Amino acid sequence: MSISLSSPGDLDRLLAALPGSDDTAGDAARSRQATLTKPPGSLGRLEDLAVWYAGWRGSATPALTRAHALVFAGNHGVTARGISPYPPEVTAQMVANFHAGGAAINQMCDACGAELDVIALDLETPTGDITSGPALSEEECLAALNAGMGAVPSDADVLILGEMGIGNTTIAAALALACFGGTGADWAGPGTGLDADGVSMKARVVEEAIALHKPHISGPFDLLSRLGGREQAAIAGAVLAARSNRIPVILDGFISTASAGVLVWAQPGALSHCIAGHRSGEPGHARLLEALHLDPLLDFGMRLGEGSGAAVALGVLRCALAAHNGMATFAEAGVSDRD
Amino acid sequence: MSISLSSPGDLDRLLAALPGSDDTAGDAARSRQATLTKPPGSLGRLEDLAVWYAGWRGSATPALTRAHALVFAGNHGVTARGISPYPPEVTAQMVANFHAGGAAINQMCDACGAELDVIALDLETPTGDITSGPALSEEECLAALNAGMGAVPSDADVLILGEMGIGNTTIAAALALACFGGTGADWAGPGTGLDADGVSMKARVVEEAIALHKPHISGPFDLLSRLGGREQAAIAGAVLAARSNRIPVILDGFISTASAGVLVWAQPGALSHCIAGHRSGEPGHARLLEALHLDPLLDFGMRLGEGSGAAVALGVLRCALAAHNGMATFAEAGVSDRD
Repeated sequence: MSISLSSPGDLDRLLAALPGSDDTAGDAARSRQATLTKPPGSLGRLEDLAVWYAGWRGSATPALTRAHALVFAGNHGVTARGISPYPPEVTAQMVANFHAGGAAINQMCDACGAELDVIALDLETPTGDITSGPALSEEECLAALNAGMGAVPSDADVLILGEMGIGNTTIAAALALACFGGTGADWAGPGTGLDADGVSMKARVVEEAIALHKPHISGPFDLLSRLGGREQAAIAGAVLAARSNRIPVILDGFISTASAGVLVWAQPGALSHCIAGHRSGEPGHARLLEALHLDPLLDFGMRLGEGSGAAVALGVLRCALAAHNGMATFAEAGVSDRD
Repeated sequence: MSISLSSPGDLDRLLAALPGSDDTAGDAARSRQATLTKPPGSLGRLEDLAVWYAGWRGSATPALTRAHALVFAGNHGVTARGISPYPPEVTAQMVANFHAGGAAINQMCDACGAELDVIALDLETPTGDITSGPALSEEECLAALNAGMGAVPSDADVLILGEMGIGNTTIAAALALACFGGTGADWAGPGTGLDADGVSMKARVVEEAIALHKPHISGPFDLLSRLGGREQAAIAGAVLAARSNRIPVILDGFISTASAGVLVWAQPGALSHCIAGHRSGEPGHARLLEALHLDPLLDFGMRLGEGSGAAVALGVLRCALAAHNGMATFAEAGVSDRD
C-alpha cells in the first residue's frame, strides 16, 4: 500500500485510523515459543521481540528477509545560531560519503544485511531559522512527509530510520520540548560535540523557538512545519507508511525518536509498531525514551545518528527471529520436558 | 599454537606466563578511530571494542572473518540432590538437538555467522556429587581442561564459549562462592526454572559443597576438579588456549563466566582477552560480572546458556569491526572536520 498526503488534515485523518497488529498471529507465536527446546522464557527479550514482530507481520513464523534502511538528510537554518561545531556543508559531504559507501551506516548495513537508501531533501534550501519563523511552509512540509512515505518499500520486512543534518539535535530538542515539556536544558545536549557553553546556548535557542511557535501549534503538522526540518517530517512520514503496511520499524537515536515522537504525542499507540534500537549518548534521548515508554535494546553510548544504532539492533532482531522460526520443538527433537 | 597440560602444576605455570595484547596495534586502532568520518567518540562502546580487538589480533585494522562457537556438555552427579527441574538425560538429548541443528545456538550461529562445534564430555559418566566428594579425579580434570584447549581452532578470529549440562548452574554457583565469597543464596538462582523452595534448597547444597571442599582448595586446579564439572574445566581450558593464540573470547552467561572466573581468581588479568556478551537473567550472573569488573554488552534477560547470548553479542562486535575497518577517513571522503 502506498500513501501520501494532500493537506495537513490528511495527517490527522491518517493518525486517527492506524491499523493494529494481528493478535491471532502474535498469540500463535507466543504459543510456539512455549514448545521450543529451551526452558520457558529463557530467551528473555528475544521472545518478546519475536512475538511483537509476528503480530505486525501477521504470521506465527514470520520471515525477516528484506531489511531496509532509509537515511533522510536535511539542512537547517538554525545553524546560523552557531549550535553545531560542524559547518552545514558537512550534510551534503556526508550524503556523498553515504553514496560512496564510506560512512558508518554503510558498514553497519553490510554487517547486518540491510539495503540502504539515502534521501537528500533539498539540501541547497535550508529550512527557516526556527528562532525567527517557521522552518517549513505548508507545501514544503507536505513534500517532506510525502518523501518519507514514498521512500518506504512496501515489501520490506523491517525498516531502519536514520538521518543526517548538521544542526538537527537542536531541531529534535525543540520537538521534544514542544511535545513533552520541561526546559531547553532538559533536551539540549552536546550533539556532535558542543562544550558546556555551547550546550547552554543551544538550550536558550530551543526555548526561544518554542516561545515563538507554541501559541500556533495545535497538531502534529504544525509541530513538523514550524519546528520541523525536512528529515524529521520525512521520518514521521516513513513511520506512518510503515504502519500502513504493517512493517515493524527500528528507531535510531535522539533525532529519529523525536521525529517519531510527534506522532505519539498526537495519537497514543502510534508507535506500537516501532522499537527503540538503542539508547544514545545524547542525554535528551534517554529522557525521550522514558517519555515514550520505549525500552531500548542496546546501550552503547553511540551518538552518531545515520540509523547506525538501529542497524546494530537489527542483528538482535535477526537472532530473535532465527531462534523463533528455526528451533525444534520438544516433540520434534525428542527432548524430555521438565519433570 | 596448541597447548595441553600434563599435570595440575602446568595450569599454574600457564597462568603465570599469559601473553598480553599488542599495545602498538591497539594505539594505532585508537588513532584510526579519530580519523573516521564521524564526531570523535560517537560510536561509543563500538570504538572501544574495535580497539580492544585490534590489540589482541595485533593489527590496526583486524579482520573478523572466522568466528567459532564451542559448546561443551557435561553431566553432574549433584543432580541426585534434585537441584534441576529437568532430568539429567536432557543433556544428551540436547547434544543430539545441537547436532541436528534444532537448538537456539544453531540458529544464533547461522544468524551471526559463526561455526559451531559441540563437544560432549563423557556424558555417560557424570561427575561425582560435590556434596559428598570431589567432582573429578585429577586425570578426569586434566582430560577436560585439555579437551577445552584442544577444541580451539588456532585460526579462529574470535571465540564464543557456551555449555550445556543439567545441574550446572549449581556447579557455577559453587565455583562463584568458592572464588568470590558470600553465601549460597548469593549465587544460587532458579536456573532452568526452580521455584523459591528449590532455590533455597540449591543454596544449601552449594554451601554443603563448599564446606566440604574449601579446606582442600589452594589453586584453580583444585577448584575445577573438586567442584568442577567437565564443561567448566573445558571452558577454562578454552579460555587459556584462546589467550595463547591471542584470540578474543566472548563469554556467555553464568556458567561460562563462572568457569572463566576461576582463572582470574587465580591470576588477575587472565580474562583481559574476554568480554561478557550479555548479562543473563540468572541473578548470580549480575553479581559475578560485578566481581569480575566485566561490563556486559547486552542485557535481555536471556538465561539459556549454550553460548546463545554470546552469539547475539558477536553481531555487535561484527558491527564494531565493520565500522572500524570500512569507514572512510575525513581526508578520504573530503568531509570538513569540525570548525
